[in-house]
Amino acid sequence: MTSASHTKVIAIDAMGGDNAPEVVIRGVSRFKDSGYHFIIFGDKSKVDPYMGLIPSGLSYEFRHTDIAITSEMEVMSALRLGKKSSMGLAIQSVQAGESVAVVSSGNTGLYMALAKIILKTIEGIDRPAIASVLPGKHGSTVCLDLGANAECDVKNLVDFAIMGEALARSIFNKEDVKVSLLNIGSEEVKGGRLVKRTSEILKKLFDNYVGFVEGDDLSKGDVDVIVTDGFTGNVALKTIEGTAKFIASEIKRTINHGILARIGGLIAYPALSSLKRRMDPRLYNGAILVGLNGVVVKSHGNSDEIGFENAIKFTMNILNRDIFNRIRDLIDKSKLHDAIESLGGEVL
Amino acid sequence: MTSASHTKVIAIDAMGGDNAPEVVIRGVSRFKDSGYHFIIFGDKSKVDPYMGLIPSGLSYEFRHTDIAITSEMEVMSALRLGKKSSMGLAIQSVQAGESVAVVSSGNTGLYMALAKIILKTIEGIDRPAIASVLPGKHGSTVCLDLGANAECDVKNLVDFAIMGEALARSIFNKEDVKVSLLNIGSEEVKGGRLVKRTSEILKKLFDNYVGFVEGDDLSKGDVDVIVTDGFTGNVALKTIEGTAKFIASEIKRTINHGILARIGGLIAYPALSSLKRRMDPRLYNGAILVGLNGVVVKSHGNSDEIGFENAIKFTMNILNRDIFNRIRDLIDKSKLHDAIESLGGEVL
Repeated sequence: MTSASHTKVIAIDAMGGDNAPEVVIRGVSRFKDSGYHFIIFGDKSKVDPYMGLIPSGLSYEFRHTDIAITSEMEVMSALRLGKKSSMGLAIQSVQAGESVAVVSSGNTGLYMALAKIILKTIEGIDRPAIASVLPGKHGSTVCLDLGANAECDVKNLVDFAIMGEALARSIFNKEDVKVSLLNIGSEEVKGGRLVKRTSEILKKLFDNYVGFVEGDDLSKGDVDVIVTDGFTGNVALKTIEGTAKFIASEIKRTINHGILARIGGLIAYPALSSLKRRMDPRLYNGAILVGLNGVVVKSHGNSDEIGFENAIKFTMNILNRDIFNRIRDLIDKSKLHDAIESLGGEVL
Repeated sequence: MTSASHTKVIAIDAMGGDNAPEVVIRGVSRFKDSGYHFIIFGDKSKVDPYMGLIPSGLSYEFRHTDIAITSEMEVMSALRLGKKSSMGLAIQSVQAGESVAVVSSGNTGLYMALAKIILKTIEGIDRPAIASVLPGKHGSTVCLDLGANAECDVKNLVDFAIMGEALARSIFNKEDVKVSLLNIGSEEVKGGRLVKRTSEILKKLFDNYVGFVEGDDLSKGDVDVIVTDGFTGNVALKTIEGTAKFIASEIKRTINHGILARIGGLIAYPALSSLKRRMDPRLYNGAILVGLNGVVVKSHGNSDEIGFENAIKFTMNILNRDIFNRIRDLIDKSKLHDAIESLGGEVL
């Protein structure tokens, strides 16, 4: 039950998300003999009924708090109570150097707010972003910001590009990653001042900046990083989810309509389920709140145990690479400063 | 070949789009004995090879110009040449009262620019928008702006809501349409100043304003109108297209993988093709440039003849209702003024 020295420790918020704490406990339980140690923060009376599910090979400890953050809370009271909540204590475990990462399914906005207060942003980064890996036809793409910052300026987007490149290099384990900027046309004349100005700077800053991409590029997998503001990114992410659900419901309706379709559907069933598994958003569960001094991973609020398991796997994948030094290297201010100078020294 | 008096006349730009003029001529040819008369504007030497395709029952006339607008043109030279181009002449036919609508597959940005210059915006509307009907699980939704205005202010979004309501009432043929605003969360605290302020005004202005919706609502069909800025709307539209294409390619790959899946796929084929037809973007082809003094319809740049046919059908559907009086009624300035006054009289 206790951590061996040098074992990597992950802090878990047991109380976040729609199906907490059951799916959290079930999700963590899938990591027996993983070489990781888990510190689970939660309300003992609520977690107790599920403690029997934990297998003997799991390395973990439990820490009690009766304070949990809920989506219904006012922001101010959530922040006031926050540090003593299961989410806040889990983040503090990273801040104290006890854990190397934290995973929660709790409210994204409050998670970001607490993580910023407790861990602070990496020096040189103004605002953290939410990043995730999207599946596409020819591969996967790191996309950010997916909703942390509804309103962004040029400096924010440049920061996102820097963090996105570091993330993509780590996650895809290659040096040469293609960075792009989301716009409403690939021509240089398209879009507003924000994307035009950002694009000028990214061109100076990155050798591997490929320019503008459009909404349909989010599902192509031809570039490694797509940068956008948190408003557009969040709408796009939810649009993908909505479109996939709509098509799935149409397929189901079609296959249930008529005897031939039903027979065909039954025969093709194994293949179609493998497709469903491949497209399953739970397999891509795990967004990282990037730009903070620590690995802060968000699992989907209504994820089940498979989803939570994948959020932990995603965390471990990031932990195996050293993304922070990469980000720090990229935000080398002299480089950014040179890029702006060469454009006439205008402010961002 | 000539129009009977009182016949509705539609102006057609034969030279716009990737597959012009062939698909345009083939698309128009599907409307023989439709009761509509078409004035086709194009380059005689390029259109001539396809004139033989036109059936005898089609009421049309052809007008020659050797100037065509291409996407490669500089904006300024396109605008200079524009009025003499097939696109410009077709728009002028509406301005002159000769035609009641114009349809083109040409470059959207130039089409909008020319239409604004020639037809002018409806009094009270600052900027026209691109609107289209999106299919969803429980019905269809009018969405705007889909890309005309990369940067919008509160007044623009309020205008879009007014135009969207008028369009939805016309297209869905009902009075009580639900109007909503796209945001990154349905809670009132989410999003930036632009959407919050717009939402306050829409609440005062419409009895049937239902508040914020999110990206996944674009495919639900639970609301009749979704309002957003042209940047977000364009990204969302292309994200839907990209996601649908990605899923279709995954289905194809799955069904071709393994003998059982292939047999099942073959048996289910008729049902799956009916699904494909139902999801076919060509069937939803046709966006309206709304807010102008005339019905200006855009067909997709790479649409085929079915797509162009549907853009014309979409046009006829709009012509059958009186959307202009509805828009003019809704932009009744005293009403808008009252709404702003009641919020403390601040400027938009």
